[in-house]
Formats: sequence, C-alpha cells, structure tokens
Amino acid sequence: MKTSALFDQIVQKKSFLCVGLDTDIAKIPVHLLEEEDPVFSFNKAIIDATAQYAVAYKPNTAFYEQQGSKGWIALEKTIGYLKSNYPELFTIADAKRADIGNTSAAYANAFFNRLGFDALTVAPYMGKDSVEPFLNFQNKWVILLALTSNPGSADFQYQKINSASEPLYHQVIKTSSGWAGPDKMMYVVGATHPEELGRIRQIVPDHYLLIPGIGAQGGDLNLVAQYGLNKQCGLLVNSSRNIIYASGDSDFASKAADEAQKIQHQMAVLLTKSAIIS
Amino acid sequence: MKTSALFDQIVQKKSFLCVGLDTDIAKIPVHLLEEEDPVFSFNKAIIDATAQYAVAYKPNTAFYEQQGSKGWIALEKTIGYLKSNYPELFTIADAKRADIGNTSAAYANAFFNRLGFDALTVAPYMGKDSVEPFLNFQNKWVILLALTSNPGSADFQYQKINSASEPLYHQVIKTSSGWAGPDKMMYVVGATHPEELGRIRQIVPDHYLLIPGIGAQGGDLNLVAQYGLNKQCGLLVNSSRNIIYASGDSDFASKAADEAQKIQHQMAVLLTKSAIIS
Repeated sequence: MKTSALFDQIVQKKSFLCVGLDTDIAKIPVHLLEEEDPVFSFNKAIIDATAQYAVAYKPNTAFYEQQGSKGWIALEKTIGYLKSNYPELFTIADAKRADIGNTSAAYANAFFNRLGFDALTVAPYMGKDSVEPFLNFQNKWVILLALTSNPGSADFQYQKINSASEPLYHQVIKTSSGWAGPDKMMYVVGATHPEELGRIRQIVPDHYLLIPGIGAQGGDLNLVAQYGLNKQCGLLVNSSRNIIYASGDSDFASKAADEAQKIQHQMAVLLTKSAIIS
Repeated sequence: MKTSALFDQIVQKKSFLCVGLDTDIAKIPVHLLEEEDPVFSFNKAIIDATAQYAVAYKPNTAFYEQQGSKGWIALEKTIGYLKSNYPELFTIADAKRADIGNTSAAYANAFFNRLGFDALTVAPYMGKDSVEPFLNFQNKWVILLALTSNPGSADFQYQKINSASEPLYHQVIKTSSGWAGPDKMMYVVGATHPEELGRIRQIVPDHYLLIPGIGAQGGDLNLVAQYGLNKQCGLLVNSSRNIIYASGDSDFASKAADEAQKIQHQMAVLLTKSAIIS
C-alpha cells in the first residue's frame, strides 16, 4: 500500500485507529470455542464490527503461535479475510522479527509474499543488513521499534550514546532513516512517552509512527495527537485489549464496535482541530 | 534441561556442536520434494545422520514460516522427533522473539510449553519485562542476543554507552546477567568477533555462549575456543549451511554427517587441550 492510499482512508474514515488482534484463545468468549476455528471466528466478527472505524489491523503473532500450527492457520485465514473483504485496510504483522540477512529475507518472504501483509514490525538491534531484506519489496513497510511502550524501554533504549546526550532510540531512528524514506519505513513509539514523541517528530517530521500503549497501558490519545500529528496525519494509534475484549460475552463484537467508535470520534475531533480534515 | 545434563553430553560426545536447521525448501535435494513433508523428511535424515556428533539442534523459525502453516507443522514434527528420539539433545528455537510482557508470555508458552524447546533466542532491545516471562520456566533457557555475527552488529551493538568506553552489547550482558544466572541465561556472540569474546568471558565467566558464524560467515573455531572455553566448556558452536547443505544430492545426509564429524573431531582436540575432557 502507498502512503497516499493510507492517508485517503484516514481522511475518509476520520480515523487513524489500528485494531490490535492480540487474540488469545484463553480470553475469547466461551461460546466461540464450539466453532471449528474459534480464533478466526472471533477475528472475523471483530473485523466486521469495527472496520468502519479503523484504518489498520495488527495481528500479533505471539498469540497465534501459542496454538502452534493451528494458530498459524488462524493467522492465515485472518489476513486472507482482511485482504479479500477489506482490501483498503492497512495490515500489519506485529512480529518483531529480524535476523542476519539471509534469514531476514526468509521472514520477509513469509510475511510479505506468503501472508501478504502490508507491513511488519522489525527489531533494530542487529542493524542494517538485518533490516534491508524487508525494504526490498514494493509498497511494503518496515515498522522499526524505536521507543517501545513498556517499562523495559528504560533499560537500553534510553541509554546515552557516544558521549552525547542522545539516547539510543534517537540513534536508531537517525541511522535507520538513512536506509529508507517515509514511503517504506515507520517507527514504533509508545504512547507512554508523549514528550519524547515531540522530539522524535523533529527527527522524522514526515514518517508515520505506529503508537501502541493507549488503553490498557495508560497512554493518552490527546497527548499523542498533540505531539505526533503531522500534515498527513502521520500516526497509526493502536488499541488491542480495550477493543477486542470490551465484553467477554456474546455481545463482544458490538461492544468492540462501541469502543472503536468512541476512539474514532475522538480522532475525528483531533484531525479536525489540526486541520487535517475539514 | 539442566546445565549438568548439557555438560555430560558434551563430555560424552566430545563435542559442543549445535546443528542449525535453517531448512529452506528451495535448497533441499529435489528428490525430497516428492515426500509428503519435504522439510521434515530432510530434517529427520539430517538429525539421524549427525546426532552422534552434535549436542544441540537449532531450527530457525524464519525458514519454516516461509511455508506458512505447513512450515509450522514441519517445525512441530521436527521438535517432536528430536524430543522422542533424542531426549538427551539440547533444543533451541532460533526465533529472536521479545515483546511487551503479556506478549512475551505468549511466546514463552508457544516455544516452551507447546513446542517443548529447551531454549529460545531472545532480542534485548525492549528490556527487562520483555525477557522476564521467558525466565519463569524451570530448566528452560533464554539465549539473549549480545553481539551478533552480522555486519549490522556495528550499527548499534558497538555504540559506546553513557560516556564510558563500554559498548551497548557489554551493557546488555551486564544488565541482563542481573535478571537470571548462568542456569537460565546464555548469550549469542558471533564467531566473527573472537577478541570481543575474550572480553565477554571476563564479564560472564560461567555462562554458556551460543556462537553462530563459523563456516559460511567466516568465523574460526580455534579462535572461538581460545577466547570462549571455560571449565564447563561454556560454548555451543553452531554450524548450519556448511553441514545441512554439504551436498545437494541424494547423499546429503551422509555428507552432512562427514561435515559434522569433521567439526566434532576439531572440538574433541580443543576440549582435550583445554583439559575439559581427558
């Protein structure tokens, strides 16, 4: 997908919501366990109920791998369903992969060719040749971990580099932004660090940022928008648990839609205030 | 698996060889493509031919994911075959996972409970709470990326931290060695950095180190042993492509055995020289 298509969808839906499909078979409504593929049935219902409010979907591979090959089948069905029924949606595999070159090439093949995702989250620790194989695909995206939403981001990402006052995550963004432009690269920046988001915007004014951490992790959407929005929106804000587990009962899909709509309404206000939509 | 069981096997086989099962369906002998599950048939033959020379096996998930759920089934069969037929072998999922806490817990469940691997390679960038869920398992191991074998290791791992002369990868080892002891944690250190290996040995004298990078990547086994061996051996040296693709023909398994045996012979000499075995 091209940036222009993503932005068109944001304008049309007045939303920059990404729904995180962290679908854990231990957490979905029990009546679904009678279905042949409970995880896929859950995802399908969630997608159908929320697609009008969201521009992106992000299955997290961990929750599928918990079920082994069965989980991988549910992942294949989920991305297949998204591509067939909602081709306008931006699809992200939240897999946090990266390895030496020939191995990263295999991961790129797995997620971009075989599964057909538009984007993949990638870990930066192994450097350029571990990221480059993911950049060799037309209209596919690397979403590189920069400053993550969890407490452990303090352990290494905030460490000061090279006798300067710059933290490692700045260096990750600066160095990697030389590997590909904003048409191929996005960054993960946790909603739990709104002020750092402002500094990141100065380094990469034009890049899209994928923002996890609102909802269960405590990040604030208004602060994220204040520090992160650019002229082309430039943000995809993810919500997972708050939406998909809004109800543990048979009304889970309609309750998920209510939550997604609530966030979309907030986003419409923020986009209008910033004159991104009129 | 406990350290003592791993060491017993090293003494008995006079080997610290790990065979990397980077099994790419595009690279295996063509006659296997007629089999129901070519990747598993290949792995089975490689394991049977080389198990007397190796103490550990390390499937790399990227090559399985390239085939989607079918590849994940081949991975399940491979670990199942190893556990049933060679329970003494140490099994490593080279998956380089890590995410926020609840997601890492799902990955731990996937690789330790469901698949039953003894160890998992883990990426450090997201810090403590992304690694801890993997440490909550009895006799299971985190193998944390410290200094990787690829050129991109220079991009961030060598960056100097906190106005000191210490590179990031030192800090990763020092900080993480406070999260768990050498009974639960190992480190990935590329064979392409033998002198750094000596410095790492000073920081973590007792930990096992998983060493990729001999063979196709150019690392030298003698240098690795010189800088890396400790009293309990303390090394698992991986070879993937050199062994598993030693021949592209119907003699692939016996040629793989020859290559594994060659390395095992070198290792026996090195273990004797260092008085680890008599």
